Amino acid sequence: MSSPQSLTLYTAKVCPYAHRRPMPRFKVYKIDLANKPEWYAPKVNPASKVPAIAYGGPDVLPEDPSPESTKLAESLVLVEFVADLYPQANLLPGDPVLRAQARFFIEVAGSKFGSSYMKFIRAVQISCQDSGKYAIGDQYTIADVAFTPFFARFKSVAESEIGKYEIGQGHALLKTLESPKYAKFNTYVGHLLERPSFVATFDEDHVKDVFEKRFGRTQ
Amino acid sequence: MSSPQSLTLYTAKVCPYAHRRPMPRFKVYKIDLANKPEWYAPKVNPASKVPAIAYGGPDVLPEDPSPESTKLAESLVLVEFVADLYPQANLLPGDPVLRAQARFFIEVAGSKFGSSYMKFIRAVQISCQDSGKYAIGDQYTIADVAFTPFFARFKSVAESEIGKYEIGQGHALLKTLESPKYAKFNTYVGHLLERPSFVATFDEDHVKDVFEKRFGRTQ
Repeated sequence: MSSPQSLTLYTAKVCPYAHRRPMPRFKVYKIDLANKPEWYAPKVNPASKVPAIAYGGPDVLPEDPSPESTKLAESLVLVEFVADLYPQANLLPGDPVLRAQARFFIEVAGSKFGSSYMKFIRAVQISCQDSGKYAIGDQYTIADVAFTPFFARFKSVAESEIGKYEIGQGHALLKTLESPKYAKFNTYVGHLLERPSFVATFDEDHVKDVFEKRFGRTQ
Repeated sequence: MSSPQSLTLYTAKVCPYAHRRPMPRFKVYKIDLANKPEWYAPKVNPASKVPAIAYGGPDVLPEDPSPESTKLAESLVLVEFVADLYPQANLLPGDPVLRAQARFFIEVAGSKFGSSYMKFIRAVQISCQDSGKYAIGDQYTIADVAFTPFFARFKSVAESEIGKYEIGQGHALLKTLESPKYAKFNTYVGHLLERPSFVATFDEDHVKDVFEKRFGRTQ
């Protein structure tokens, strides 16, 4: 089943939440986060954040959203929505236990976002299943969609030492991750970052450029 | 479809998270949160919290969980799991848009948990649909399951002035909520708290008793 309704995704290449994007198949409109169009909050997302989706209604230009389409927001809600719309993508396993495990992975790893990056990495490493390429096995699920954009941005930022921390801290963190202790994490992230659908939607130079303008560079 | 597998819910009557319980149909084992059985963390939930579910495996006593059953935790993950297991309960609407709206409601209202109770109430009031008895319409969904236990405990605590706040604050908060401004919120919560499945699982005296022992009484 392919969705019979029109679907526009409002996104920004720099934003990891907006990059929780299971497939690049729909109409995409890029929002400049530093200079948001004035129609965006009143007509698409009152919270004025990306990602958001306009679904259904007449086939209009993204710059002129119809009041008849349904507007949806919050990245994880949208990931579940897309998984519901396109069951053939198998982002949600058919087995309720596997679905629960995918959602549990998101809950546990997501709860560590607010704390340090190492705590987050450890939560991912512990929660990752021992068998299979992805978070809960060999199937790529919403659990993987949820964090791939964050892993990629972390890697870029640490490698290029962009951000508000001391010189060398990014490289030191990467060095720590080389320990065999983090082999499971590294193998998992490697599988995620090599996926063609991810590679096609990750504009690393743009992300680094925006981050550097926003946060500066340590060296 | 009724689940062909055995299902044990580990819960505690006082805990609102564990009370996010869409139906009282399965084997229930009450955990005394002040004196948890020593087998609970190693055999059921390493985080040692309620709720948790043991699903599948041989039909065993709850006190002797089998290593062959799947252990699941985190209340919202369990609510989705139960909705998946018992589709006839209609906790998740068939329409992907309505499902997304139910999950968005949980996301928005849930994000206000950490701040003040009034902020939470305002988020609920704003997010609640204008038509229908429940959060997203006339169907009782996971959005309603998620917060009913919190509304009920809030009401009890405020009415009886249990908790670590100044005398009269509970009653003052209830007075504020009498304003016509909060009519939508009150009508909604009224519908939730009168549901027989909720009434049957809410032991108000027990909750007040435990809260009073834990937090004291203001007056």
